[in-house]
Amino acid sequence: MTQFQPHDSSRPRLGVLGGMGPLAGASFAVRIVQLTAASKDQDHIPVILVNDPDIPDRSTAHFGQGDSPLPAMIRGLHTLESTGVDCIAIPCNTAHLWFEELHQASSKPILHIVDAVIHDLQRQQTLQGTIGLLGTPATLKTRLYQNRLESAGYKPIIPTQTEIQELLVPAIAAVKANRVDKAYAPMMHAIDLLRERGAESIVLGCTELPLAIPYSQRSKVGIPLSDSIDALAREAIRWINQQEALTQAVH
Amino acid sequence: MTQFQPHDSSRPRLGVLGGMGPLAGASFAVRIVQLTAASKDQDHIPVILVNDPDIPDRSTAHFGQGDSPLPAMIRGLHTLESTGVDCIAIPCNTAHLWFEELHQASSKPILHIVDAVIHDLQRQQTLQGTIGLLGTPATLKTRLYQNRLESAGYKPIIPTQTEIQELLVPAIAAVKANRVDKAYAPMMHAIDLLRERGAESIVLGCTELPLAIPYSQRSKVGIPLSDSIDALAREAIRWINQQEALTQAVH
Repeated sequence: MTQFQPHDSSRPRLGVLGGMGPLAGASFAVRIVQLTAASKDQDHIPVILVNDPDIPDRSTAHFGQGDSPLPAMIRGLHTLESTGVDCIAIPCNTAHLWFEELHQASSKPILHIVDAVIHDLQRQQTLQGTIGLLGTPATLKTRLYQNRLESAGYKPIIPTQTEIQELLVPAIAAVKANRVDKAYAPMMHAIDLLRERGAESIVLGCTELPLAIPYSQRSKVGIPLSDSIDALAREAIRWINQQEALTQAVH
Repeated sequence: MTQFQPHDSSRPRLGVLGGMGPLAGASFAVRIVQLTAASKDQDHIPVILVNDPDIPDRSTAHFGQGDSPLPAMIRGLHTLESTGVDCIAIPCNTAHLWFEELHQASSKPILHIVDAVIHDLQRQQTLQGTIGLLGTPATLKTRLYQNRLESAGYKPIIPTQTEIQELLVPAIAAVKANRVDKAYAPMMHAIDLLRERGAESIVLGCTELPLAIPYSQRSKVGIPLSDSIDALAREAIRWINQQEALTQAVH
């Protein structure tokens, strides 16, 4: 509280396209703060969050049962760009099914959540082996994670169709409806089933899922977890810090 | 997950000028989500958060020891206005020492955090009596809360200067430094002292302070708390819902 810095508008800023769901978007902003090494306000990262809950549902759109989320997501990206952000994070795994279109529509780099999770597995020293993957029906079916995990040397396994519909879908819907407590038991059941089938680590590959496991409970789960909210937050902090170091090196 | 609505850009949007501190700004966005009645993503409120940690420290500026935060706060307001928000909340009590200047500089209504806390006391059926007030040295000294609480029929009391410096200042600094656990004991001590002096209810009148008391512990504190983050979140949700009802009545 005793050091002062002038407002430096050249500091790199992170843009967050959130609202998918809204709790994931806002919690991502919290995790950016909590995972930053800081001793005062001014050590933290400037963040602009567009938490737009009106973006049409990504899973239903993917299965041809609802409006495409793409126009609303692109509007959100353009809003973020207009505020001067330098890089964009999208804390929603299913939104990454449109990653190429979003990347094309944006003048700023967009971090990829699956790359962030792979970096997080490496950070946790999980360098190979069987990875149990939880996510929405759309991300699991389209192999959003599986192809990249295999390229990186992992063996991904996923729940059965019945388990996805009876455990993951209700858990995700409960978080979106502010009933986080109702998501815990089905998600734990899904994790246990994957562990019985050989998973050595679990990827929480939908940003609703980490919200259902309190941080104080994580060490008791009995298997390492890679949380896609935290993984993307760490990736964003690293990007901003690198960019800031580069900017300072130039000046 | 079964209903679809087209993206309706005419829906009222909340702007949040945050970063003071960053955890308070991001946590405010989380509380907006958690305090909204919702059964799916699209029931939540559209929020744009500018979480700008580079805004100069409000307390030190007030005491003439640092840059004024006003230019950076006005820049943040203008960024929010440019994104099309309809109303602005500022989850920082000390920032409200510049409320008049911010109000003059903004084309959109700004909710006042002290009004929000008074509405929250009324919601809790605390309609009169002695209110123990915690806050930053600057807000307590300038009577940001005291005058409005007295006008509303309450009797505010505050900690001594020594208690402010030895309990509140370190608690607030700990939250800004991501050491939330270090803030709990000094804040509880300050609450106990005010209770011994007759406080019947406590106002957490700095947005860092609520972050130090887990929600699961609040019923054990033994005295009603009015949390300025939650009070402002409830005020904002009410404003947006009323605006939405008006908009729908017109169409």
